[in-house]
Amino acid sequence: MKKISIIGASGSIGTQTLDVIRKESGLSLIGVSVHSNLKKLKEIIMEFHPSAVAVTSEKHYEEAKDLVRELEYQGELSFGIEGLIHIATLHEVDTVVTSLVGMVGLKPTVAAIKAGKNIALANKETLVAAGEIVMDLARKNKVSILPVDSEHSAIFQSLQGSKHEEIGKIILTASGGPFRGRDKAYLKTVTKEMALKHPNWVMGAKITVDSSTMMNKGLEVIEARWLFDVGYDNIEVYVHPESIIHSMVQYRDNSIIAQLGAPDMRLPIQYALNYPLRSHAVADELDLLKIGSLNFHKPDTDTFRLLELAYTAGRRGGLQTAVMNSANEEAVELFLDDRIRYYRIAEIVEEAMDQFRDLGEITLDKVLETDIHVRDYVRRKFKEV
Amino acid sequence: MKKISIIGASGSIGTQTLDVIRKESGLSLIGVSVHSNLKKLKEIIMEFHPSAVAVTSEKHYEEAKDLVRELEYQGELSFGIEGLIHIATLHEVDTVVTSLVGMVGLKPTVAAIKAGKNIALANKETLVAAGEIVMDLARKNKVSILPVDSEHSAIFQSLQGSKHEEIGKIILTASGGPFRGRDKAYLKTVTKEMALKHPNWVMGAKITVDSSTMMNKGLEVIEARWLFDVGYDNIEVYVHPESIIHSMVQYRDNSIIAQLGAPDMRLPIQYALNYPLRSHAVADELDLLKIGSLNFHKPDTDTFRLLELAYTAGRRGGLQTAVMNSANEEAVELFLDDRIRYYRIAEIVEEAMDQFRDLGEITLDKVLETDIHVRDYVRRKFKEV
Repeated sequence: MKKISIIGASGSIGTQTLDVIRKESGLSLIGVSVHSNLKKLKEIIMEFHPSAVAVTSEKHYEEAKDLVRELEYQGELSFGIEGLIHIATLHEVDTVVTSLVGMVGLKPTVAAIKAGKNIALANKETLVAAGEIVMDLARKNKVSILPVDSEHSAIFQSLQGSKHEEIGKIILTASGGPFRGRDKAYLKTVTKEMALKHPNWVMGAKITVDSSTMMNKGLEVIEARWLFDVGYDNIEVYVHPESIIHSMVQYRDNSIIAQLGAPDMRLPIQYALNYPLRSHAVADELDLLKIGSLNFHKPDTDTFRLLELAYTAGRRGGLQTAVMNSANEEAVELFLDDRIRYYRIAEIVEEAMDQFRDLGEITLDKVLETDIHVRDYVRRKFKEV
Repeated sequence: MKKISIIGASGSIGTQTLDVIRKESGLSLIGVSVHSNLKKLKEIIMEFHPSAVAVTSEKHYEEAKDLVRELEYQGELSFGIEGLIHIATLHEVDTVVTSLVGMVGLKPTVAAIKAGKNIALANKETLVAAGEIVMDLARKNKVSILPVDSEHSAIFQSLQGSKHEEIGKIILTASGGPFRGRDKAYLKTVTKEMALKHPNWVMGAKITVDSSTMMNKGLEVIEARWLFDVGYDNIEVYVHPESIIHSMVQYRDNSIIAQLGAPDMRLPIQYALNYPLRSHAVADELDLLKIGSLNFHKPDTDTFRLLELAYTAGRRGGLQTAVMNSANEEAVELFLDDRIRYYRIAEIVEEAMDQFRDLGEITLDKVLETDIHVRDYVRRKFKEV
């Protein structure tokens, strides 16, 4: 029996992780955190009876206390970032699913690694902001970082049975998002409604916007760099509108291994939770004959600037990817709050990257500090525009 | 240093194996056989200086003796099927590449296995005719059967790091050959010239005809059944005209792992010879962006009867696949000799399969005996038509 904690259980990945645990007799849910979705928390407690739960939104503490009283819940209830860390480090837990979105995932992920937990990583910002530190820590603590992103899971699956020095390059596939084939002029007309429609995946708002700008693919490039220890020159992005080949590894003999599947996040989640074994299907079978055709083309990095900026930030190194990520998080938030236009997201990220350069050596404290400074900068500079 | 013998060195796979050995410092050629191509044998002796060579065409014995005298060749020269077996069992050899075509490959392959050699198997007829016996023997002698066919190499590569019970199904891809999309009426018009043009691969005449009838894919289905120990219900064929995805494995969690590469046989050859390591590229890089689109559809087994017959023979079991294979070999020979029309190949195979049923338990002797009887039957029945 594998014992699982989920931090960020009410979001898209969290919900699908719950579905995998529901269908897998070998998995047991020990701890969960939610931000503010107490309805979801109630359902989880009633169905899964976890040993410990946490609520991170301060406004919801009292309501959460009422809820556990009403349910006569016998487990632990904790709060805030301490609660999050508690859930991530519960003694009996084997694997922590980090399915919360944004930089807030960094601290509990680090705490979980230090406590010897394997990480089923869905919080890509952790590696984008502090990849070097986190991967170092994972090595030292002998824990596995198991990717949950469909692309990185595909790469991870395609790497099974191989040696690191045999890797030639990694090919990340990208759906291209809803604005694939559009130009810069078109991006000036994009509204929130337009940006929140993704052709292949149903996801949260932040990641859906990131997919539409291709920032998401940029974050994935950086994530891949750290997860698989390859240089940026050996990571390519192919636009693949059908999102069926989830990514590929080209080996040094020019053989390519790829992973394909129906666009169902439960597959990579299940793989991460059962690794190194493969369990019976939760996701549907892929019907490649029905799909008929898989297409590939080069991404348009002139229109989708953020993909190019991610490579730039990655190559600059140090805190640049953290800066890029924080600026993007804040800019997307401003966009979702109707405070800035869509095309401004990329401009803001680029400006912030130039503003915050040469910040010296990367440390965890500096990553967290930089996050605050960059967000502050973005808000001050753009909120009132 | 891996020490290699090639039986059938002058054919398409043999020649490409030589090219891999030429480019790989870790591989050394110890023994070769050719049927009658003494020009090729001369080149091989001069370039690779193997310890032993064999010539199997009786008509060419004297000429071969002259050749080794002329070259002042110091190694061994042997003849016929005994020569073939000698090359396949040379003491110092690690891996035998069985790149000769047809049932003639069976005896030396069995001898090599008994002598503890790993087999780089390009002679698919061996497994089609006697898969159960050969795989049993390989297990008992603790040798590896390493597939060289691009499809089976793709499956083998896609299986790395997995467990047998995790396999859901195997998906063999097929180019569909030059007559893809054609109907039965069209097949009646096919000439030798038409059948000998393959869209994606340059191969010998026999296998090119087999590709055009899809018998080749049928042979591969049977080969896959034995190589990977899966039932016929768990082997599917998808027509994939571009021949870029060389085959796939669908695991029980519905994740598919596929191998892709440029259509270059040196890649699977190199993989088999270096296994379990991957070496540096001999084959060109695949340019998926240039190819742009990969397509898949269901094979038309009504038109391409031989694919269906292969499943039938496989499911009937026993000696049926040997019968099918021998009848096909003989029929293709008759076709290449302009003795029968193209569409008769499938009819002949079907008739032979019905003629030779219930032959009892499969043994190596019976396989060889059946081969003689079936060929005789086919020749008598059709040569004079």
